[in-house]
Amino acid sequence: MTRRLTHEDAHGAAHMVDVSAKEVSARTATASGVVRVPPHVVALLRGDGVPKGDALAVARVAGIQAAKRTPDLVPLCHPVAVHGVRLDLDVQDDGVRIAATVRTADRTGVEMEALTCVVAAALTLVDMVKGVDRDAEITDVRVDGKSGGRSGTWSRADDSTDGPGTSEGSGGPHGSAQPTGTGVAGPSA
Amino acid sequence: MTRRLTHEDAHGAAHMVDVSAKEVSARTATASGVVRVPPHVVALLRGDGVPKGDALAVARVAGIQAAKRTPDLVPLCHPVAVHGVRLDLDVQDDGVRIAATVRTADRTGVEMEALTCVVAAALTLVDMVKGVDRDAEITDVRVDGKSGGRSGTWSRADDSTDGPGTSEGSGGPHGSAQPTGTGVAGPSA
Amino acid sequence: MTRRLTHEDAHGAAHMVDVSAKEVSARTATASGVVRVPPHVVALLRGDGVPKGDALAVARVAGIQAAKRTPDLVPLCHPVAVHGVRLDLDVQDDGVRIAATVRTADRTGVEMEALTCVVAAALTLVDMVKGVDRDAEITDVRVDGKSGGRSGTWSRADDSTDGPGTSEGSGGPHGSAQPTGTGVAGPSA
Amino acid sequence: MTRRLTHEDAHGAAHMVDVSAKEVSARTATASGVVRVPPHVVALLRGDGVPKGDALAVARVAGIQAAKRTPDLVPLCHPVAVHGVRLDLDVQDDGVRIAATVRTADRTGVEMEALTCVVAAALTLVDMVKGVDRDAEITDVRVDGKSGGRSGTWSRADDSTDGPGTSEGSGGPHGSAQPTGTGVAGPSA
Amino acid sequence: MTRRLTHEDAHGAAHMVDVSAKEVSARTATASGVVRVPPHVVALLRGDGVPKGDALAVARVAGIQAAKRTPDLVPLCHPVAVHGVRLDLDVQDDGVRIAATVRTADRTGVEMEALTCVVAAALTLVDMVKGVDRDAEITDVRVDGKSGGRSGTWSRADDSTDGPGTSEGSGGPHGSAQPTGTGVAGPSA
Amino acid sequence: MTRRLTHEDAHGAAHMVDVSAKEVSARTATASGVVRVPPHVVALLRGDGVPKGDALAVARVAGIQAAKRTPDLVPLCHPVAVHGVRLDLDVQDDGVRIAATVRTADRTGVEMEALTCVVAAALTLVDMVKGVDRDAEITDVRVDGKSGGRSGTWSRADDSTDGPGTSEGSGGPHGSAQPTGTGVAGPSA
Repeated sequence: MTRRLTHEDAHGAAHMVDVSAKEVSARTATASGVVRVPPHVVALLRGDGVPKGDALAVARVAGIQAAKRTPDLVPLCHPVAVHGVRLDLDVQDDGVRIAATVRTADRTGVEMEALTCVVAAALTLVDMVKGVDRDAEITDVRVDGKSGGRSGTWSRADDSTDGPGTSEGSGGPHGSAQPTGTGVAGPSA
Repeated sequence: MTRRLTHEDAHGAAHMVDVSAKEVSARTATASGVVRVPPHVVALLRGDGVPKGDALAVARVAGIQAAKRTPDLVPLCHPVAVHGVRLDLDVQDDGVRIAATVRTADRTGVEMEALTCVVAAALTLVDMVKGVDRDAEITDVRVDGKSGGRSGTWSRADDSTDGPGTSEGSGGPHGSAQPTGTGVAGPSA
Repeated sequence: MTRRLTHEDAHGAAHMVDVSAKEVSARTATASGVVRVPPHVVALLRGDGVPKGDALAVARVAGIQAAKRTPDLVPLCHPVAVHGVRLDLDVQDDGVRIAATVRTADRTGVEMEALTCVVAAALTLVDMVKGVDRDAEITDVRVDGKSGGRSGTWSRADDSTDGPGTSEGSGGPHGSAQPTGTGVAGPSA
Repeated sequence: MTRRLTHEDAHGAAHMVDVSAKEVSARTATASGVVRVPPHVVALLRGDGVPKGDALAVARVAGIQAAKRTPDLVPLCHPVAVHGVRLDLDVQDDGVRIAATVRTADRTGVEMEALTCVVAAALTLVDMVKGVDRDAEITDVRVDGKSGGRSGTWSRADDSTDGPGTSEGSGGPHGSAQPTGTGVAGPSA
Repeated sequence: MTRRLTHEDAHGAAHMVDVSAKEVSARTATASGVVRVPPHVVALLRGDGVPKGDALAVARVAGIQAAKRTPDLVPLCHPVAVHGVRLDLDVQDDGVRIAATVRTADRTGVEMEALTCVVAAALTLVDMVKGVDRDAEITDVRVDGKSGGRSGTWSRADDSTDGPGTSEGSGGPHGSAQPTGTGVAGPSA
Repeated sequence: MTRRLTHEDAHGAAHMVDVSAKEVSARTATASGVVRVPPHVVALLRGDGVPKGDALAVARVAGIQAAKRTPDLVPLCHPVAVHGVRLDLDVQDDGVRIAATVRTADRTGVEMEALTCVVAAALTLVDMVKGVDRDAEITDVRVDGKSGGRSGTWSRADDSTDGPGTSEGSGGPHGSAQPTGTGVAGPSA
């Protein structure tokens, strides 16, 4: 099955796909990711023995602002009016789980906005902890679901990962068998 | 060991650390990451049966441009004069491995610039393949090494990962034992 | 009366309020402010004895451009399609009065765009006169009125201030009694 | 005394003054301003009866980021490598006093960066409280001092204002009588 | 015939024209331009004797991104939701012909977006070849046509120029006689 | 003579050339271009019968700001500290001649900054006159000279063009014979 990449024409040249004929409709996308840090950094983020500071708020602001700047970062992305952003940062025992929800009423989906939001918050966390941990790692960044638009609702089959602590045993991002997916509707399902 | 986060003051308030007294010196940082995609997407990126298009070049440009815009994305990052960027995209059997090298002659390191470069290239790849694979995932994003500046040369202890194909068996990002690291000087070394 | 800040959730976390369900409608906002400068600077701006130069035009351009960039500057602001901007700079005897009107047909109001417009013009004026007056001061920056949207028309009760020259005797921005407001419609009106 | 505006040439045309021959040196600038809000908003910002949220952190981030973007906002400003930013937000009984210190080792001063930092934090506060107070006002925004560079140390003569609460009785920004300041009062004066 | 410039008011002051009352409709604009380079540069761009590299793809990306950033570059331009961009780079014997098509469903036309797209691609080409040819020149940049909106379809009368090779003998951009224009509707038609 | 494009590696992949080892030195570049407009537009720009408005000042500001944003527009350009910009707009009988001089003390030349400055001013003029002339054309945009840096002083051989009025008879941008060039030093001189 070789479909063409949608952002390339028949000769392979990049272009921005024309969406001017798509309808304005309410759309939502969710994405998530993890910044893995060791326990002594988790303690700092939780405020154990030191004032709990601005770190998580700074990351939240960075994520929200980056969502608005997605078309500046991702060259073939359409500008989209970002109408709502929620960004949750959950400090767990072996890292920080980041989850973003982006909403719009516009002509294209906001999956890239949600991913960019997660990634910018993650980069900002790494920046803030790099003085105490050079090994911080950003991982498991992916779109978890979307709704609205012509293709309707979709959510990732493998959404068993609910944080860095429990993701160790997961079969991997493209594991073939996802028999127990709940509420899942893949594109072809 | 509870050190304070360097970007917070004694009350936890975020600030941009004063580096005006640091010396201008040649600095390099390398970072890498992986975009996992299934085989049919790998085939499209490799140009199997379709023209090999601009996709990798677009991702490369996105990464280079994002390196320059790091202080816009990461709120407490200093503006740094990015003096050189190399970005390698290696299409492997289960994904694309991204590796960036950023160079500067300035007062602070460019680890965040290298990470941002990797992440923007990764986001751009996800954007370009999302029409044919909604499950693409960005993972294993981290600083691999740095040189220059007061703290000198450092490289990640766990650098056995050289691509998505071989990373399956790695012990994880904070595995304790790295007896065979070569030329490695961790923070505690 | 403790209402919550609209940009914080129940836990105090910042988010961008979801406005995707609001209707597109014509909206206008006006804002104003003052840059106080001494008489010898007023003379330069008026072109007394020197060519009357680009200074006011530069400030006007800066304000118009900043209105478009409001969501970049104000983290939780929604991107809004700025559809019209008028910016008046009135050189008075003890300063420059700045007044902006911003119009849109979009889902949220443009009060912040009008304020940002005023503030950027004011900063630009300060920049241009700082070589001859380090004491320039930006003051009395506020929203003067708005129309359109669900909350309808509103204008500031205390709008007696029509310039730096006459503002000296005003009771202050939060004076309680504004019995003679003309054309005033408070939020509950 | 009619000096020319430094940003205009003999014909009044705007240009960016050539500073390439100036020396790199350590420079600091401080600026401040006030956002006046009524008591019920002060209570919300202090967290009386509600969780003390991200509001001040968001304003702090906005200010720091804006300092870096000053040359984008103020057309004739030189790009300067912002090397350190500290931004204090002090919630007082009748408003929030904002004070910024910006440091650099570069060829021009950072007064505009400090002012822009204050103004962006102020705009962000107004944005966050505008749902509960449309009358918020930004006032008393000015450079308080600078050091470094050819012109050396300078501080504002009239720096009696230490917050909105005490500024009511001040004679105004260009009040004539400053009996004890000799036009200049260095930090150690 | 002295009409006023639309971006100036009766006093000559610049403003952003209010378009909030215009209707959202599908609009297209095309623009083109040429980068003239000597034969040895043409050979490099065509990949004669060296690998055909990313140069054209980089220029294409630059043009697409610049189209999105038009209101940042052109002060009085309205922000427009760019919904589709196609950018063709045709390497001819004496230069590279650039042609852009921009589409939107918005309230104003996208002529400036198409021109900006062409110009940014041209600048990027000049940047990439300047190490081997300092004489590269950007020329013949103009809007070729538009459709949609109240003023309907228009295309340039003089569109005989189809590349640098054939433009040598053209009468110039404002030649009076264009008797053979096909499908042409001038402003007064 | 097939040299490689400096922005591509041996495989054709784009990269940002490493300049961290180059020395900081004073550098200047000049560039120029022309916006051709018909006589009735020239009259408007000259203020014949209407107030001479902000149009030229707006274009000047746009050019200066764009010079600062060159690395955002031209993907492989290094960020350079723009230390001085002068932009002259000369309204001639058949168009506006634009000439820019950019200065820096940095590690790379500012030819691209000078070109970008010219081009942004030209786009802005086109935007402002497009309501009265859809045929405006940007042409003859090129680097005229540079000084400083390792390669020293260079100026274009063909600099006979001093405006749209006199350029009609020129042999074209790559004409071979320039016997009367004054003050010309080619790359090999």
